[in-house]
Amino acid sequence: MVKRVLILGGDGFLGWPTALHQSSKGNEVLIIDNYFRRNASAEYKVHTLYEIPSLNDRVKFWKKLKNRQILIEIGDICDYEFLLNSVRNFKPDVIIHYAEQPSAPYSMIGHKEATFTLKNNLIGTLNLIFAVKETNINTHIIKLGTMGEYGTPNIDIEEGYLKIQHNGRNEEFLFPRQAGSLYHTTKIQDTDLLYFYVRVWGLKVTDLMQGPVYGLFTDEMEDCDELLTAFNYDEIFGTVLNRFMVQAVAGVPLTVYGKGGQTRGYLNILDTLNCIDLAIQNPANSSELRILNQFTQTFSVNALADLVIEAANSIGLNTKKETIVNPRKEMENHYYNPSAKGFKKLGLKPNFLTQEVICKILQKIIRFKNKINVEIIQPKTKWT
Amino acid sequence: MVKRVLILGGDGFLGWPTALHQSSKGNEVLIIDNYFRRNASAEYKVHTLYEIPSLNDRVKFWKKLKNRQILIEIGDICDYEFLLNSVRNFKPDVIIHYAEQPSAPYSMIGHKEATFTLKNNLIGTLNLIFAVKETNINTHIIKLGTMGEYGTPNIDIEEGYLKIQHNGRNEEFLFPRQAGSLYHTTKIQDTDLLYFYVRVWGLKVTDLMQGPVYGLFTDEMEDCDELLTAFNYDEIFGTVLNRFMVQAVAGVPLTVYGKGGQTRGYLNILDTLNCIDLAIQNPANSSELRILNQFTQTFSVNALADLVIEAANSIGLNTKKETIVNPRKEMENHYYNPSAKGFKKLGLKPNFLTQEVICKILQKIIRFKNKINVEIIQPKTKWT
Repeated sequence: MVKRVLILGGDGFLGWPTALHQSSKGNEVLIIDNYFRRNASAEYKVHTLYEIPSLNDRVKFWKKLKNRQILIEIGDICDYEFLLNSVRNFKPDVIIHYAEQPSAPYSMIGHKEATFTLKNNLIGTLNLIFAVKETNINTHIIKLGTMGEYGTPNIDIEEGYLKIQHNGRNEEFLFPRQAGSLYHTTKIQDTDLLYFYVRVWGLKVTDLMQGPVYGLFTDEMEDCDELLTAFNYDEIFGTVLNRFMVQAVAGVPLTVYGKGGQTRGYLNILDTLNCIDLAIQNPANSSELRILNQFTQTFSVNALADLVIEAANSIGLNTKKETIVNPRKEMENHYYNPSAKGFKKLGLKPNFLTQEVICKILQKIIRFKNKINVEIIQPKTKWT
Repeated sequence: MVKRVLILGGDGFLGWPTALHQSSKGNEVLIIDNYFRRNASAEYKVHTLYEIPSLNDRVKFWKKLKNRQILIEIGDICDYEFLLNSVRNFKPDVIIHYAEQPSAPYSMIGHKEATFTLKNNLIGTLNLIFAVKETNINTHIIKLGTMGEYGTPNIDIEEGYLKIQHNGRNEEFLFPRQAGSLYHTTKIQDTDLLYFYVRVWGLKVTDLMQGPVYGLFTDEMEDCDELLTAFNYDEIFGTVLNRFMVQAVAGVPLTVYGKGGQTRGYLNILDTLNCIDLAIQNPANSSELRILNQFTQTFSVNALADLVIEAANSIGLNTKKETIVNPRKEMENHYYNPSAKGFKKLGLKPNFLTQEVICKILQKIIRFKNKINVEIIQPKTKWT
């Protein structure tokens, strides 16, 4: 059955491939985006590896290629009237909420960026909750959270909730969370917001605790440069794996922050798309905040560096790693054992981080080698 | 030693008595307030039992009576430049943060009020954190939280933190929290904000999980009507005990929401002042988020009603209770066993809710009997 899919932040790194994938499946797609990422990239001079067409042009390319129309609206979900009208007019079955300020370093730059992150992420989510209540309480909200909400506790990380026995009595709570940046803290706060309104108003919510995503190659983007999603490798919007791969191509050492034992759960962009599909096809129930941990493998920073070095050397690049002072305040060696049973149960077949996958991305980066600016990789934003 | 005490929200129900008490002790006091409570009371037509002089006049009365100067600035802590300049100029040793939108029903009226509550409470706290970091990281922040952050879990409520054993491993977390209104949820979110910056920047923070406060009689206010703090008994800003006492005086039944088994921790306003004193004299350490549960007794709504009926009847009022449909979504019978050892250890000598205390407040209300508007007691704000 055709679904009406509203994607908030649909111009972003994950939003755009999700829009293509959902459109490709025959669903009706509306993108809302405020161009924050593009504007901030220009303001802080941290451009993506290659130029990205305007959202308008992207949609035209897609239409030309597949004869499928993706609807777009440029606007800010922090403007409640705008969001409410869009939701009222489009009548979505599901709303995928990617419209948060997504960068931990950005949120730590200064007061301006902290305020923006807090307002954008919380007011945006509050407006979404109210818009769904005003229009159709049965709309399934799929919200992008982060594995970073859990931090790096010394106990196993369960999926969203934890049964606690204390002084002979029992209760189930949201898994206790403590994050490592203001950005990650706003995601905890968002989960608290959703949890409250789920209990009071009976919303249907899926909150995806996602790890860092890598990869560029999805069925819809692979063969058409104009449809590629952004590739950030800078200190603000880049992820550690992207930075390493660009450093390998640029012929500079891979910069490991501190001891490099920092361990996180990662996943291929193909699995992000599959997880979103599975969440759409198996919606949360009314009055349910369903929390799913969304990653397929865990790696330490050192392990990632070693994987990239192996792949890079195999294609003739001469690569090594070096340690730099950690700009963040985080544990550099720690226990990390998160669960991810939910999506397995829903049928996810993971795409793992193989040498082949890394080499394929490296080859793509090599095509844009002359555009690399290694200056923007070095961390300037300090936590303290 | 004289302390410099900045009180955010110092025109409010607790802020004003705290300002008087700190001034009376010889400390230098600056009040910042944005008049939200006064403006909202006018907007929603829920006036206090008696008129309150302007903050300017209050301070003049105090000066005349005690020859002590309390400084005031009318302004909004959500305006960062304003707050930063005030903190920079006044150079406080301690900042008491009462400047949050404090009403659960207000936060549940609609989108406008929800947005205001979220923005006011979180941006205000974020600005405070940044102002302290910019000026003097050793400034002790005393933040008013609420026992409502914990909700009503089926296990004992500890003070702030909980040691958890899970699959044979151990970790200490913030006590898991789930609140019963958006207002209470923003207090959880505030605690998360403070917790993050305490860990990253080394702030000194005391977070007070306070229960509902009753009482009007402090050494500084008792003999001077012009210095009295506000007495709210309406559905938005009033507390259950105030509503019951006003209903007893007005000769209408005490309205119990639902089954009346809702149990909370309460305290006398004298103990709020004493707790704040104790927190000032025993500041948190650097990098410490010290959480103290601030109440002295627990009561169910039914128990409070029965206490008020007993007191009211003893002074010749003829009072009974009646059940009305609960406008809130909350458990009406539940386990409730919160700890409050921290302030006992610091030396708090509690003032309990005796028949004498209730009768004294009833006598005060009787003086203003002709000003009572029983219409504003009935709940109009529904949670669902």
